[in-house]
Amino acid sequence: MNSSIAFVADIDSEEANSWLGHFARLMPETPVVPFDALADLEAVEVAIVANPRPADLLKLPNLKWIQSLWAGVEGILKEPSLDHIPLVRMTDPNLAETMAEAVLAWTLYLHRDMPAYAQQQKEAIWKQMPFTRASSRTVGILGLGKLGLAAATVLKAAGFNAVGWSRSLKTIDGVQTFAGRDGLTEMLDQTDILVCLLPHTLETRNLLDAEAFTTLKKGGSLINFGRGAIVDHEALIDALDSGHMNHAVLDVFRQEPLPAKNALWQHPHITVLPHISAPTDPVSASQLVVMNMRHYQNDGSMPVTVNRQTGY
Amino acid sequence: MNSSIAFVADIDSEEANSWLGHFARLMPETPVVPFDALADLEAVEVAIVANPRPADLLKLPNLKWIQSLWAGVEGILKEPSLDHIPLVRMTDPNLAETMAEAVLAWTLYLHRDMPAYAQQQKEAIWKQMPFTRASSRTVGILGLGKLGLAAATVLKAAGFNAVGWSRSLKTIDGVQTFAGRDGLTEMLDQTDILVCLLPHTLETRNLLDAEAFTTLKKGGSLINFGRGAIVDHEALIDALDSGHMNHAVLDVFRQEPLPAKNALWQHPHITVLPHISAPTDPVSASQLVVMNMRHYQNDGSMPVTVNRQTGY
Repeated sequence: MNSSIAFVADIDSEEANSWLGHFARLMPETPVVPFDALADLEAVEVAIVANPRPADLLKLPNLKWIQSLWAGVEGILKEPSLDHIPLVRMTDPNLAETMAEAVLAWTLYLHRDMPAYAQQQKEAIWKQMPFTRASSRTVGILGLGKLGLAAATVLKAAGFNAVGWSRSLKTIDGVQTFAGRDGLTEMLDQTDILVCLLPHTLETRNLLDAEAFTTLKKGGSLINFGRGAIVDHEALIDALDSGHMNHAVLDVFRQEPLPAKNALWQHPHITVLPHISAPTDPVSASQLVVMNMRHYQNDGSMPVTVNRQTGY
Repeated sequence: MNSSIAFVADIDSEEANSWLGHFARLMPETPVVPFDALADLEAVEVAIVANPRPADLLKLPNLKWIQSLWAGVEGILKEPSLDHIPLVRMTDPNLAETMAEAVLAWTLYLHRDMPAYAQQQKEAIWKQMPFTRASSRTVGILGLGKLGLAAATVLKAAGFNAVGWSRSLKTIDGVQTFAGRDGLTEMLDQTDILVCLLPHTLETRNLLDAEAFTTLKKGGSLINFGRGAIVDHEALIDALDSGHMNHAVLDVFRQEPLPAKNALWQHPHITVLPHISAPTDPVSASQLVVMNMRHYQNDGSMPVTVNRQTGY
């Protein structure tokens, strides 16, 4: 077939070139052409997009479907003029694995006192913290879907006492589980490191409030890899400043990017990360996209498309 | 028996009290008495020591043997007046496990760009680093004894490409191994994160010099959990400053504590740790000491003592 594939992206050129390089390497027989370089707009049947300008997409009269390189497709969905074009979003097959790695990495960061040692280094202080074995640390995971389950598995393998909480009670081999409001209190009471992997819903909004932080075991820490709106950040700062809590690692915020003036950036007991716990891996993501392109070229079949009612 | 056990230690009082608490809990029937509180110096047959003043030990005329809470016993060995007293050093059964945990923790620290994100946080910069999968990172381990083997196992389980080097070639299932000078060059050339677990010997002194750092893969990092004298720190700083190397995590130094004036403390691409990669776990260590005390009380048997020729 002589149809072509367009690359419609408003991202930095280094990142764009990296994606184009992956496609050229994996699919040398089919060029993926940047929008500005398209010779024949009418020949385009598929657009691979990353933060596309809707006006560009509307200039492709024979566009059959859109492949997003991102999981979040809110930007495209809110454009009514694109309503009729099937949309496929990125679902990174390695998401749970990458997230579990991040949970392990930042749990070890807290477990081995890296924030305290960094503070000591600034002041050239040579002082050993008391050592605690991983088996004496209880890591409480909020959310026991695919991500929570993968996290519990790696934490247990690393020797931690992993426990977990979810809305409805789940049974996981070797992991003590809790559910509901009472279950949350019971888990927080014994948790040294609390790992939030929850989605943002009406039920999880502000779930981690002053009461939750007070219930958390004295000296406990928080890792938030879920969504910013789950945490009451003022209550968190109070719990850190009072000395009840030890440290917080925050990767997600109510507003992203986190504004430069926000006090969270400068708090000595908060580690701020720019939403990097589980980034899309361009290698596996481009393989997935190329597979989708080949299936379409072979027999016109399309991957599962986004349901415009639910938004995913 | 009515003999008593003395605790002879010149360490901070909090740490001393912690050890005494462990002994009292595990062995309530036999008090361990701090030197200054001893009523009858002649009744002491065993001394549990941590950085003891030799003069104190010499005041115990019926001392049969010494149990050190530390693995390093150089301080006692260099005191000729104590030559005749059998000496038992701490050999923490969890050493390899704790060291492997530290290797995993600080490998993940480098792998997930924690030093760069900490730098960005200081300047309130929100910027994602390119993500690399663990399977695309080669971690080169120097030293393939018990510690190196345990480290390779956890690194492989976490998805890293673990390779290793030792003086004489070893075979480890699933781990590419190298030996000798040529082997070192070959391994460094492909290593992203170099982990040093070597002891300090005539052969390892300054092994990691300017040539080694130049050979290390561009953008590579170093973790030194071995001994300070293995690394030429000036050459390391040059390699970091030139941009050839990315970061170094240093836990051991030629002089410890690292003097406050040493430039390593303030280098932006060096993480300084106060020799904490594999601390003795007071819980398992006190269990081991109590077991030794009970065997001696039951039948007069003593654990393996230090060979004064080799020093361990």
